[in-house]
Amino acid sequence: MRKMLIDIPWETFRALPLAEKVPYLNQAGCVPYHTLIAQQFDRALLERLGTLANSIRTIAKTRSGTDFLRQLISHKRAMLYFSQPSSRTFLSFYSACQILGMQTGEVRDTSTSSEFKGESCEDSVRTFSSYFDLIIMRSPEKGLAEHMSWVLSNSDRPIPVINAGSGQDQHPTQALLDIYTLQRSFERSGGLRDRTVVMVGDLARGRTVRSLSQLLVNFPNIRQVFVAPPVFQVGQDIQEMLRARGVDFEITSDFHGVLPRADAVYMTRIQDEWDDETHPSRQVDISAYKFGARELKLLRPQAIIMHPLPRRDEIAVEVDHDPRAMYWRQMRNGMWIRAALIALTFGCENRVLDFHRANL
Amino acid sequence: MRKMLIDIPWETFRALPLAEKVPYLNQAGCVPYHTLIAQQFDRALLERLGTLANSIRTIAKTRSGTDFLRQLISHKRAMLYFSQPSSRTFLSFYSACQILGMQTGEVRDTSTSSEFKGESCEDSVRTFSSYFDLIIMRSPEKGLAEHMSWVLSNSDRPIPVINAGSGQDQHPTQALLDIYTLQRSFERSGGLRDRTVVMVGDLARGRTVRSLSQLLVNFPNIRQVFVAPPVFQVGQDIQEMLRARGVDFEITSDFHGVLPRADAVYMTRIQDEWDDETHPSRQVDISAYKFGARELKLLRPQAIIMHPLPRRDEIAVEVDHDPRAMYWRQMRNGMWIRAALIALTFGCENRVLDFHRANL
Amino acid sequence: MRKMLIDIPWETFRALPLAEKVPYLNQAGCVPYHTLIAQQFDRALLERLGTLANSIRTIAKTRSGTDFLRQLISHKRAMLYFSQPSSRTFLSFYSACQILGMQTGEVRDTSTSSEFKGESCEDSVRTFSSYFDLIIMRSPEKGLAEHMSWVLSNSDRPIPVINAGSGQDQHPTQALLDIYTLQRSFERSGGLRDRTVVMVGDLARGRTVRSLSQLLVNFPNIRQVFVAPPVFQVGQDIQEMLRARGVDFEITSDFHGVLPRADAVYMTRIQDEWDDETHPSRQVDISAYKFGARELKLLRPQAIIMHPLPRRDEIAVEVDHDPRAMYWRQMRNGMWIRAALIALTFGCENRVLDFHRANL
Repeated sequence: MRKMLIDIPWETFRALPLAEKVPYLNQAGCVPYHTLIAQQFDRALLERLGTLANSIRTIAKTRSGTDFLRQLISHKRAMLYFSQPSSRTFLSFYSACQILGMQTGEVRDTSTSSEFKGESCEDSVRTFSSYFDLIIMRSPEKGLAEHMSWVLSNSDRPIPVINAGSGQDQHPTQALLDIYTLQRSFERSGGLRDRTVVMVGDLARGRTVRSLSQLLVNFPNIRQVFVAPPVFQVGQDIQEMLRARGVDFEITSDFHGVLPRADAVYMTRIQDEWDDETHPSRQVDISAYKFGARELKLLRPQAIIMHPLPRRDEIAVEVDHDPRAMYWRQMRNGMWIRAALIALTFGCENRVLDFHRANL
Repeated sequence: MRKMLIDIPWETFRALPLAEKVPYLNQAGCVPYHTLIAQQFDRALLERLGTLANSIRTIAKTRSGTDFLRQLISHKRAMLYFSQPSSRTFLSFYSACQILGMQTGEVRDTSTSSEFKGESCEDSVRTFSSYFDLIIMRSPEKGLAEHMSWVLSNSDRPIPVINAGSGQDQHPTQALLDIYTLQRSFERSGGLRDRTVVMVGDLARGRTVRSLSQLLVNFPNIRQVFVAPPVFQVGQDIQEMLRARGVDFEITSDFHGVLPRADAVYMTRIQDEWDDETHPSRQVDISAYKFGARELKLLRPQAIIMHPLPRRDEIAVEVDHDPRAMYWRQMRNGMWIRAALIALTFGCENRVLDFHRANL
Repeated sequence: MRKMLIDIPWETFRALPLAEKVPYLNQAGCVPYHTLIAQQFDRALLERLGTLANSIRTIAKTRSGTDFLRQLISHKRAMLYFSQPSSRTFLSFYSACQILGMQTGEVRDTSTSSEFKGESCEDSVRTFSSYFDLIIMRSPEKGLAEHMSWVLSNSDRPIPVINAGSGQDQHPTQALLDIYTLQRSFERSGGLRDRTVVMVGDLARGRTVRSLSQLLVNFPNIRQVFVAPPVFQVGQDIQEMLRARGVDFEITSDFHGVLPRADAVYMTRIQDEWDDETHPSRQVDISAYKFGARELKLLRPQAIIMHPLPRRDEIAVEVDHDPRAMYWRQMRNGMWIRAALIALTFGCENRVLDFHRANL
């Protein structure tokens, strides 16, 4: 039976475990209507998205291709509602929309604006959404994107919502671009399977690592290695999830010990900017969790180095010139995978693939 | 004799009564060149705008229609100069421009920007306008849009100005969307005539109610009912205007008493956020001027509930699901009527109506 | 031998005299790849740019012309990275991009944004640039545009950079629009040669006057007159440059004495807003360096009055209506010359000139 948000009260939906929310968010059980959580993407969907992203970027290499892409959904308009500022995620989505010819409008940083005082967030979003065909929203408020999806699905203007990051909670398109980067990097050497992925840094608080770990479970024989000092190690919930799924994983603080075995090293920033002097994070020597010239020597020739950016000093600038440094391309992959997600959301997958086949 | 802004000194024009300004602002006496005040719109023009808005929204339902609309004035560019922030009015105009294919540029919130220090507002606007073909401007400064219209009409670049709200003064396109919402709501039951329109809330300070009241005078047999506690009642100037025009109206504080007679209820927010504790507004019980489940029961089945938004708690959230709740659609009507106004300003009325007739 | 940024280390390039940087910045020695400094433009290139700007503005007068222009580089996307706010330069570039059909994204005022804390400027710019085909950047940080040009030329995404103003340093497109305004103003009376250009105001700190002076050296027999009180006179470096090039120039504080000989008067603002009471600028009577009704009478009938804007009171508002007041048109010239520069950068010069010849 098809499950729809119009059939379930908000409080009931909100309380569902994530896995049980998925059928309400995907259309016909397979393609996202609203994109809210990484759990909506199984391996088949991730492969499909990656293929679509590859087609779009290939098509975009020619002038006739960019012209084709820019008329795809040029009759649709997207609202970027970023009540939490994030220029990099904003520009990535914004560029994805422009590639597909979508016009955009934006609301940014409502937290500092007196004009929103006294109005509920739901009213603001619903108001602004009334002019658009898609909302891409980022908010420091956990669950706001989820609530808006429910509100809109229950209104006379049920437009789709894409979660572009909600607090420390979910940031599904970051996870999509990480997976896509792994898929692309390994596509000529057997695909994303039988690999060791090493995640390094602030694994306790970084939502990117948490989502990546969850999506990697979909791929066969991926060993996950978590490298951090104990205070920053990945949460018990992730470890239990991996155990329950029978995934091979390893918890360690020995970065140099695991580096020679890595196919991909995913570096992250220690997020201690808000920690005061008494926080345990201040007592830890984090110098052993940085990537520089010495680490380059320990890394296999075919391995890749990833980072969600922005970086501080976890990766030395001289690493940028190494061919294994993948983080700038990873950034750009984000634009293409977001374009693919939007194209899929608006039902343009086949038109893109047909054009690709016919012209290239 | 045709009156033009180039023929009249600024101080003379500024001092004219509103009605005498109209011929200077409208082209050939009938279509706005600059849109500054609600008084520019008589019944014929309001009907014409409503018809044009209906055509545009019907055309926009098909892909070939959106393509047609987006080439209409794609060679023109609009500047949105919003020195007073207002995301909802901004996005509404912005969307209207995009529907017609107009490119836009924007200047927002100059009040906090040091780069404008020492430069007159007129110089700023004239500078920015030099790159565009239309200025849509919102300003906390009363009369700035009027002055800019005069300045530009007397320059070598006499581009049109649309007032998107000036202080507590005029907000003509809000009045247009309110009238358009009434026209649409009653179009299948005889049109906007022989109705009772009930306006509720802060009638003393709300400019939307003042403009609505003035435009309603153009329509036959509209009874206007003003519901508020005495401290918030509509101004003597409006009451005198209504008396002078022979319009049937009523001043009352009995909300429940008039509700069963209403064809339209126009709720507004008590604007007491800037009032201190000693202000008379603080002594008043405003709970009797809210719309909730009880009020729904008193309302006729065919009546409508309007609100200019944002709301605080004047209308309970549960009212949103009632089919008589018109405020979300009212918001969206604003986008269409603004698109119609811009199309009219650039002389595209006949091309739109011809396309509508030929294709639909 | 062709010189390229990929062949020279950053520290070596940075230390080169400006004239020696030029071959690294221009393609094949003649057209800018990156546009960073006024010194990149010799007379031939300035004439070529002026001709191209004239073609673009003529083409833009017809609907078929605007349609032609808007498809020229509609497959390219520009990033406006303005970490120093400047609405007027921003909108001028933004409009230039729109005229050529380029889509744009923007990052503004990063100085106040916490999201950039801890990330290097180079990382921010490189990240954002990864979605775009051109960066137009303005920064309070001297040399940032230069560094980014080098960084990008040495990356796998060597997109061009246009400097839209860097600190008190260089603002090359302002100089281009000033020269273009002089070219246009004198094109029917023999061109930009054998003229007296009078520069007035804060010549010590104003970078516009410094750049203008340097570019004027390219044109035959232009006498440069610098009018300011001694504390605001033009720097010794400029005077030495003029002497070395054998250019006829004059240093004076007698504004009224030189006015009757002027072909162009370039007024500038005294930039004393940041000077405290003890600064020498506070001791000077600047009232003798303003342009009003008396100065209009001293000026030749064919002479022109220029100003980079914004003005404070250096030019009285009543001067605006005099046909010799060129500053509003100068502003607009900026949009056209920037469109020409972008068209040149993307290799569209011949297509524009061909269309002009074929259609007009």
